[in-house]
Amino acid sequence: MSTTDLFFSSDSVRTAQPLRYAQSVELPGPLRLEKGGELPAVTVVYETYGKLNEAGDNAVLVCHALSGDSHVARHTPDDDPGWWDIVLGPGKVIDTDRYFVICPNLLGGCRGTTGPGSINPATGRPYGQDFPTITIGDMVTVQRMLLDKLGIRQLRAVIGGSMGGHVAMTWAIRHPDRVRGCIAVATSARLTSQALAFDVVGRNAILRDPWFHGGQYYDKPTKPEVGLALARMIGHITYLSREAMQEKFEANRYQPREVPVEFEKKFSVGSYLGYQGKRFVERFDANSYITLTMAMDLFDLGGTVEELTATLRPARCRWLVISFSSDWLFPPEQSQDIVEALVANDIPVSYCNVTSRCGHDAFLLEDDLDRYGALIRDFLHHLDPDTAQPVRADLHGPKSIFHQQRIDYDHILNLIPPQASVLDLGCGRGSLLARLRARGHRRLVGVDIDEQAIVAAVGRGLDVVQADLNHGLRFFRDGQFDYVVLSLTLQAILDVEGVMREMLRVGRQGIVSFPNFGYHKIRRMVAEEGRSPKTAGQLHYDWWNTPNRRFFSILDFEEFCRDRQIRISRQIYLDTESGVEVTTDPNRNADLAIFVLSR
Amino acid sequence: MSTTDLFFSSDSVRTAQPLRYAQSVELPGPLRLEKGGELPAVTVVYETYGKLNEAGDNAVLVCHALSGDSHVARHTPDDDPGWWDIVLGPGKVIDTDRYFVICPNLLGGCRGTTGPGSINPATGRPYGQDFPTITIGDMVTVQRMLLDKLGIRQLRAVIGGSMGGHVAMTWAIRHPDRVRGCIAVATSARLTSQALAFDVVGRNAILRDPWFHGGQYYDKPTKPEVGLALARMIGHITYLSREAMQEKFEANRYQPREVPVEFEKKFSVGSYLGYQGKRFVERFDANSYITLTMAMDLFDLGGTVEELTATLRPARCRWLVISFSSDWLFPPEQSQDIVEALVANDIPVSYCNVTSRCGHDAFLLEDDLDRYGALIRDFLHHLDPDTAQPVRADLHGPKSIFHQQRIDYDHILNLIPPQASVLDLGCGRGSLLARLRARGHRRLVGVDIDEQAIVAAVGRGLDVVQADLNHGLRFFRDGQFDYVVLSLTLQAILDVEGVMREMLRVGRQGIVSFPNFGYHKIRRMVAEEGRSPKTAGQLHYDWWNTPNRRFFSILDFEEFCRDRQIRISRQIYLDTESGVEVTTDPNRNADLAIFVLSR
Repeated sequence: MSTTDLFFSSDSVRTAQPLRYAQSVELPGPLRLEKGGELPAVTVVYETYGKLNEAGDNAVLVCHALSGDSHVARHTPDDDPGWWDIVLGPGKVIDTDRYFVICPNLLGGCRGTTGPGSINPATGRPYGQDFPTITIGDMVTVQRMLLDKLGIRQLRAVIGGSMGGHVAMTWAIRHPDRVRGCIAVATSARLTSQALAFDVVGRNAILRDPWFHGGQYYDKPTKPEVGLALARMIGHITYLSREAMQEKFEANRYQPREVPVEFEKKFSVGSYLGYQGKRFVERFDANSYITLTMAMDLFDLGGTVEELTATLRPARCRWLVISFSSDWLFPPEQSQDIVEALVANDIPVSYCNVTSRCGHDAFLLEDDLDRYGALIRDFLHHLDPDTAQPVRADLHGPKSIFHQQRIDYDHILNLIPPQASVLDLGCGRGSLLARLRARGHRRLVGVDIDEQAIVAAVGRGLDVVQADLNHGLRFFRDGQFDYVVLSLTLQAILDVEGVMREMLRVGRQGIVSFPNFGYHKIRRMVAEEGRSPKTAGQLHYDWWNTPNRRFFSILDFEEFCRDRQIRISRQIYLDTESGVEVTTDPNRNADLAIFVLSR
Repeated sequence: MSTTDLFFSSDSVRTAQPLRYAQSVELPGPLRLEKGGELPAVTVVYETYGKLNEAGDNAVLVCHALSGDSHVARHTPDDDPGWWDIVLGPGKVIDTDRYFVICPNLLGGCRGTTGPGSINPATGRPYGQDFPTITIGDMVTVQRMLLDKLGIRQLRAVIGGSMGGHVAMTWAIRHPDRVRGCIAVATSARLTSQALAFDVVGRNAILRDPWFHGGQYYDKPTKPEVGLALARMIGHITYLSREAMQEKFEANRYQPREVPVEFEKKFSVGSYLGYQGKRFVERFDANSYITLTMAMDLFDLGGTVEELTATLRPARCRWLVISFSSDWLFPPEQSQDIVEALVANDIPVSYCNVTSRCGHDAFLLEDDLDRYGALIRDFLHHLDPDTAQPVRADLHGPKSIFHQQRIDYDHILNLIPPQASVLDLGCGRGSLLARLRARGHRRLVGVDIDEQAIVAAVGRGLDVVQADLNHGLRFFRDGQFDYVVLSLTLQAILDVEGVMREMLRVGRQGIVSFPNFGYHKIRRMVAEEGRSPKTAGQLHYDWWNTPNRRFFSILDFEEFCRDRQIRISRQIYLDTESGVEVTTDPNRNADLAIFVLSR
């Protein structure tokens, strides 16, 4: 957890500083709410960063999480730090020299925008628990009204993490015509039952606090501080990963900090939680906590991928979905469900599961900023309609079987007709896709297991999804692509049968290239020298460290296809050493084979 | 979660039934406590099952978890079910026709044994929070005094899960002369910071409940029921896995049950937790909850494997350690630390990480009983000094390279001198180890990644540890074994270098057998047919489904050893088809090679 002090994690100990740069607007009511009821009028507090350009197309809407507010980052060097200072600012990931950023405090919050602590005009006292049940959709409605008022018709992107991700996704679904890109970080289509359960316990702690008084505690000397602190303590545990907690508290398990709180202080982690709970109570309202967590708990884009696919159908902007490997509150599988539903709708999406030890809080911390920040920055960059998208030189591209160039790409490109949609399995940094894009193909998707490859491919403006081919291509519909390419990858795959089956389910045609272990030089190494084959290029590994695990020849592969009624419509055999196509006895004379397959 | 009803999970809704078969003894005081203070006298309530045999050596001590009690199982068909009814009884895993089982309610509990709800003789009223801090060690002291009183000198085994595992391990450390076997299930050397944090929040909920009255609530009309219920709700979430909660609550997320509780009932999972919390309050005492969780939180066998190794040094009985793959409260890595420390001390141990979807509660549920039950039953069986341990026929043993028998075993056995200690990597069901044991070897340990193989090997009375060779042999000390065997396994290993390095770190000698891909028949397949090699026996797989991923010859392996200064002290080359040793041109004429290696 790098530089973070024991008692300062994410936004948890920020106090309720005055919002020096916040602005406020009154939205005319009544606002009809999705779960019934209405609000007579709504105040929205928001902050902006940077300048709206002349075209009015550089606005980025930032949606805060449960305990956030409008203060994303400092406006001036002497300003208080915001909850996403590391991400937003001049020259940063969300570059305020380039984008006009707006972040409103969400409806139901307690930092200026109308919420349960606001005065109910009907009674002249705070709403308290009379504040109606609100939804993420209601929050979006209020944000939309704000943008209308500010004259912002078009958003370059909407971005949010956790509950902010719920808001961002709802924007993309409700107002696809106004959003160019949606960035959903550490979020989900709906909470897991486990996450929901923690919320329920937290709310119960508040609701059953004897000083809660049915929510009308505002004028009381004692407030439901114990209940709210308990809720926050539970929440805080769920925001951290188990590993992160070990790192934070194991070395000094029995050395609690001296903190002026009335909670148990026997253990280091206990003094930390007690302190976090106490500080949270100073800046957050118990009724808002109930209102906002309930909105999050009611958020539901579907309990199955099928339902989710239907819900996301209108969300036709470009998407970037980011999860964190150690996030157990919003686990990566939930992001993968979102990606699956987007892909099923042919909505362009990139997805990366960032390797992290920081749990759900990772998106607020600096530890993994090199990757999630790069993804966000590059994705935003490529949303710019004026951004030239040159095909960058691929310095780290894979190698030919005997040489440094991928000469199979030329042949594969020739096999794919113009305009065809293509899925590249094991796309790496996107070399083949970039060439296809340069040739004018529109619907291009890559899949790779490697995080760095995904980050690099997103950096090129490609749509790539991080996934393990061995676990199936569940992301994709039957026949979704004209061509599915598996270039020099099959030899490293565990589940050959599964990947081949999936490839020909998802693609109308499949193109497979592989090194031929029947090649005469390889045969000679085995037969004459009695040694494991090793060459330059693709086969430059030793027997004990090669990532290749399948050693097969053209004959082997033909038999494999024949046994499974896979139709071979085209075969290209290459001798990559001499750079020529092979026509006679390819199993002996070709070192590389390209097959075009179908069912 | 198979047959479990939504509202009946593990022991959670058992009510405080009268303990019809419980017995009670008074232990003379004062009992001096480890953290200071003393108890003037202690009452212990316990139940027994089965009969103590004449030798007095069939007693099994069962240690309950946090919310358990002395009532492990029903005594008669019409008795109330106990918390481990599925495991204990006539003919069951802990067979009461065979063993004499005793289970006392633990010190500090609230089901008969002295605890905070007992009358403090000094004041004439319940101890409440005047009850001293107790430790797991104090609980063991009380159990030991009870056994002394009952005349039970020797325990066949002590067994416990979760906190019960803490008690069982403490027995093995403190009284190794009285314990033949220790079975530690779903437990840890100390709590993770995350688990500790949840306990702290639960205690805070109780301590800050306004009806707690500093623990003197026994004569009050209102008790700290909300706090205790909140603590139980938090605990309950941590006992279940995320998957288990999905299965339980996803289908009916918005259909809460009608339950007569004052907690939030908006969601299915909420009504469940509210109900669980309410029922728990009916049978459990808030002060006991604080006392017992604190004892668990203070339990600490060491924060590092080094410390743990020192702590476990005296614990010289046989061990069985069981974890559950989806247990995130007591995660498998913690059991692996215990195993590592035991192995470092040359203490015999078997370890299995049971694949389960049930989380921490798995050991109380029927879902995975086929595996954890078999492990416990067989381990207990082989603790019997009278149990003959015949070498069972190995019906599922691995195959020779070309044939159905493992002819390499005979040669490997001949290479190992009598009495040598042996570690078998990739031991499978323990065929080689069983032959070594039959020959009189004492110190034999097996490692395998496969759960079923581990269960089978424990069934043969062997000491086997479930681990992935590719992740290193951290379990073992430098030079811990005379011989480390890697028979017909290297060809399936990803991290060849790492495994070879570890092998020669842990063993003074290493014995490696592998199929030779330089064999003339294989060369012929490659060279003449241009096909991936496939034979009967060990190489009966196809190129696309073989678990083998390393294809190397004797020459390749010799070079590998030479490059790493690995000393080859003996080479045996076999032609397993004709069953003869090969002496000329082995790289061409042998299909199987055995190397004896050292540094």
